[in-house]
Amino acid sequence: MNLRPVGVLRSSLKDRKDAPRQGGEGARDAWIEIEPWARDALLGIAAGDALLVFTWLHEADRRTLRVHPRSDPSNALAGVFATRSPDRPNPIGLHPVTVRAIEGLRLLVGPIEAIDGTPVLDLKADC
Amino acid sequence: MNLRPVGVLRSSLKDRKDAPRQGGEGARDAWIEIEPWARDALLGIAAGDALLVFTWLHEADRRTLRVHPRSDPSNALAGVFATRSPDRPNPIGLHPVTVRAIEGLRLLVGPIEAIDGTPVLDLKADC
Repeated sequence: MNLRPVGVLRSSLKDRKDAPRQGGEGARDAWIEIEPWARDALLGIAAGDALLVFTWLHEADRRTLRVHPRSDPSNALAGVFATRSPDRPNPIGLHPVTVRAIEGLRLLVGPIEAIDGTPVLDLKADC
Repeated sequence: MNLRPVGVLRSSLKDRKDAPRQGGEGARDAWIEIEPWARDALLGIAAGDALLVFTWLHEADRRTLRVHPRSDPSNALAGVFATRSPDRPNPIGLHPVTVRAIEGLRLLVGPIEAIDGTPVLDLKADC
């Protein structure tokens, strides 16, 4: 059960501690660079499309099972399955975005709160 | 970038060819059996909650980059990133469900169209 990234995120957001907690909370647009071998999988995507971007949150702590939601100690401890914490056994990020532009193997999408260098696992139609 | 399943789906749906195409299209309820090591991650989940279930579509063809959507040859070829085809380089399934019941390490959820034995990768709050 091995993942093979289909691309990488190129963002002006460089550090996890600066990332907004969800895409709707002030996140920005960023570029996805698709691997040349996956080019054919882009057929039919156009500016304006709604997509789900799946990422691998490579800086996550995979041993975390409980968190204080939104890192606020006044929130009661919750299991990570009841939250959107990036720290979880399989740190797959899910980002609903709009395609702003597409240029060859590069897609400008947003809003997306993942940091620069985040591996991209998949894109799906958001329907 | 290795996935470790957090559980497995137990469904009366045994064969991919009998699966509806999306959860809203006549899919059924099914049990998720969580691995004992992940028990703490369930804290706070209750019947009635809306969750996103992430699965590993283990019968998918990972070499597929283009498909006729909904396996209908009269639909124009599309890149898998523009579709919800299960055949794609990283066959991660996404299933919005409602928790019907929870009994220890087992959750009854639905509607979900994945087949019996499908590995479960993650659960997230659907917010």
